[in-house]
Amino acid sequence: MRAAATSTAAALLAPRLTCSAIRARLSSSRLPLRRIAAMAAAPSSFRPEEARSPPALELPIPPLSKFKVAMCQLSVTPDKARNIAHARAAIEAAAADGAKLVLLPEIWNGPYSNDSFPEYAEDIEAGGDAAPSFSMMSEVARSLQITLVGGSIAERSGNNLYNTCCVFGSDGKLKGKHRKIHLFDIDIPGKITFKESKTLTAGQSPTVVDTDVGRIGIGICYDIRFQELAMLYAARGAHLLCYPGAFNMTTGPLHWELLQRARAADNQLFVATCGPARDASAGYVAWGHSTLVGPFGEVIVTTEHEETTIIAEIDYSLIEQRRQFLPLQYQRRGDLYQLVDVQRLGSQ
Amino acid sequence: MRAAATSTAAALLAPRLTCSAIRARLSSSRLPLRRIAAMAAAPSSFRPEEARSPPALELPIPPLSKFKVAMCQLSVTPDKARNIAHARAAIEAAAADGAKLVLLPEIWNGPYSNDSFPEYAEDIEAGGDAAPSFSMMSEVARSLQITLVGGSIAERSGNNLYNTCCVFGSDGKLKGKHRKIHLFDIDIPGKITFKESKTLTAGQSPTVVDTDVGRIGIGICYDIRFQELAMLYAARGAHLLCYPGAFNMTTGPLHWELLQRARAADNQLFVATCGPARDASAGYVAWGHSTLVGPFGEVIVTTEHEETTIIAEIDYSLIEQRRQFLPLQYQRRGDLYQLVDVQRLGSQ
Repeated sequence: MRAAATSTAAALLAPRLTCSAIRARLSSSRLPLRRIAAMAAAPSSFRPEEARSPPALELPIPPLSKFKVAMCQLSVTPDKARNIAHARAAIEAAAADGAKLVLLPEIWNGPYSNDSFPEYAEDIEAGGDAAPSFSMMSEVARSLQITLVGGSIAERSGNNLYNTCCVFGSDGKLKGKHRKIHLFDIDIPGKITFKESKTLTAGQSPTVVDTDVGRIGIGICYDIRFQELAMLYAARGAHLLCYPGAFNMTTGPLHWELLQRARAADNQLFVATCGPARDASAGYVAWGHSTLVGPFGEVIVTTEHEETTIIAEIDYSLIEQRRQFLPLQYQRRGDLYQLVDVQRLGSQ
Repeated sequence: MRAAATSTAAALLAPRLTCSAIRARLSSSRLPLRRIAAMAAAPSSFRPEEARSPPALELPIPPLSKFKVAMCQLSVTPDKARNIAHARAAIEAAAADGAKLVLLPEIWNGPYSNDSFPEYAEDIEAGGDAAPSFSMMSEVARSLQITLVGGSIAERSGNNLYNTCCVFGSDGKLKGKHRKIHLFDIDIPGKITFKESKTLTAGQSPTVVDTDVGRIGIGICYDIRFQELAMLYAARGAHLLCYPGAFNMTTGPLHWELLQRARAADNQLFVATCGPARDASAGYVAWGHSTLVGPFGEVIVTTEHEETTIIAEIDYSLIEQRRQFLPLQYQRRGDLYQLVDVQRLGSQ
């Protein structure tokens, strides 16, 4: 499974290889997106192609461009076995309702706290009994033939703990693993103070995964505050950004929807988020409000704070439409500013 | 006046010179912002300082850190002399109400249309009778001792027309001139189609101006869609971004407030916008909704579509507070992504 994740990452880091590989792999696509080429023909002294370094990749053709996505806003308890069974039931119900892509919340197998992270952490590389949450997700993705963005769980690797999102293909294989890049260290006096860096180690790479339901960029919660990450994912050809998250009662009402809509509208792609249901008696009280946003920044479906699964349709042809209306990619000023994808550039 | 604008630009392009020059100039500041240094002390392998290239400048100490700002949402008619007198009266009323900074709308001296731009254009460099809108703004800023972000007017320079924002100091001098960088070329079938590039030429530089009321980054309308510009201004030490704008009835409800709030929250600074009042009989119908947003993405004051002047207080100490709560500047991952300010880097 490590090999699968690594090869996906390597393919994304080598864009020429990726493009041809993806075209070959996706030749059976059902609803190919038309190319937006008309406006690209005009030469420009503004060098919009240089506004992304390396230049942005073309949007790949996904195997499935119209499908149902489900966000399972789960209640989470201190009982890990219960949480695993509960998540499994929600995933099965979502698939029964036709979802081809299912999202889980951030830290869904136990309480969100620095005390709990070590206790509930799993050794994903060891798998099996060392990683019951991981094993359940792999098994259920395979048996239901769905793509699963498995929220996040605490991961133990050597002496380190990470806040980790595993993405499973419809064959149950691990397609990518995102370790939260930007740790949640904030201090709003009298409101919310939290330091993930007390116990967790930050991830070392952005994560983009090619799946049956398109190219997905992964961020976890606080990662959404860093617009550069979303811009970088868009430049790597992502159709959809998924952010498992657990915003709190202070930053949730202020920023949760704003950030999702801004990432979607600025980058003209889909954004899906999934948080835990609110438990007002928990040490950390989550905002809820799982949401799907379209490429015009429009909220397609959202919910309040209670346990629920929300399902909506994603239609990637809307990305092309929005980018034709507002051709930002050909209007950027590479002569004035440039976003560098450091790892992708370094791999070339 | 050209010399003043040029020297401001040169100072901003040479950060070391700027910092010391600003400290000397602003030694009489009334409410100096405290430094956010505590978290910067910790060494990090994430190299957050490299997330901006060149590294972000420190927030300068403004001469005035708490003051009233007025946004004059003006009605605009085909009668240029009337528009000039009307704008002057609104500016005078705002100053009488205590405003130290006044904003005007995009294209406020005549209709917003490709047919009208050449007819209403002024030769700013010639000044005097060749530029009656410009002359009025300079004179009124001096006589009222206010900073004036003069919305925008069509500017003729040689064979080119620009959509240009002039910023006047409280001495009436032109402190900076922003020519719209990203022209408004969009095509939403059945909704709104416009091509500014039919008649206008795009500006060649971002514009940051040091004024009595802080360091201000200027964008005009469509410029707000390009998050890179706002990020670049924040890295040049801006306290406030001003966007004269005239969003339309399609993109206004969809994106106007979203973009303002996103630029403010992501960059943790103030954003002020000013549009023309709506004239439903005009060829181009504007959305209105002039707004001031604070550094937490919070709307401080806004309005609907009718002619009005809205006044609110700006308190720059909120910037420091927000950046302490959420220290994004020390959490960015310069090891993963980097925003390059091409002109500032080139000048070093």
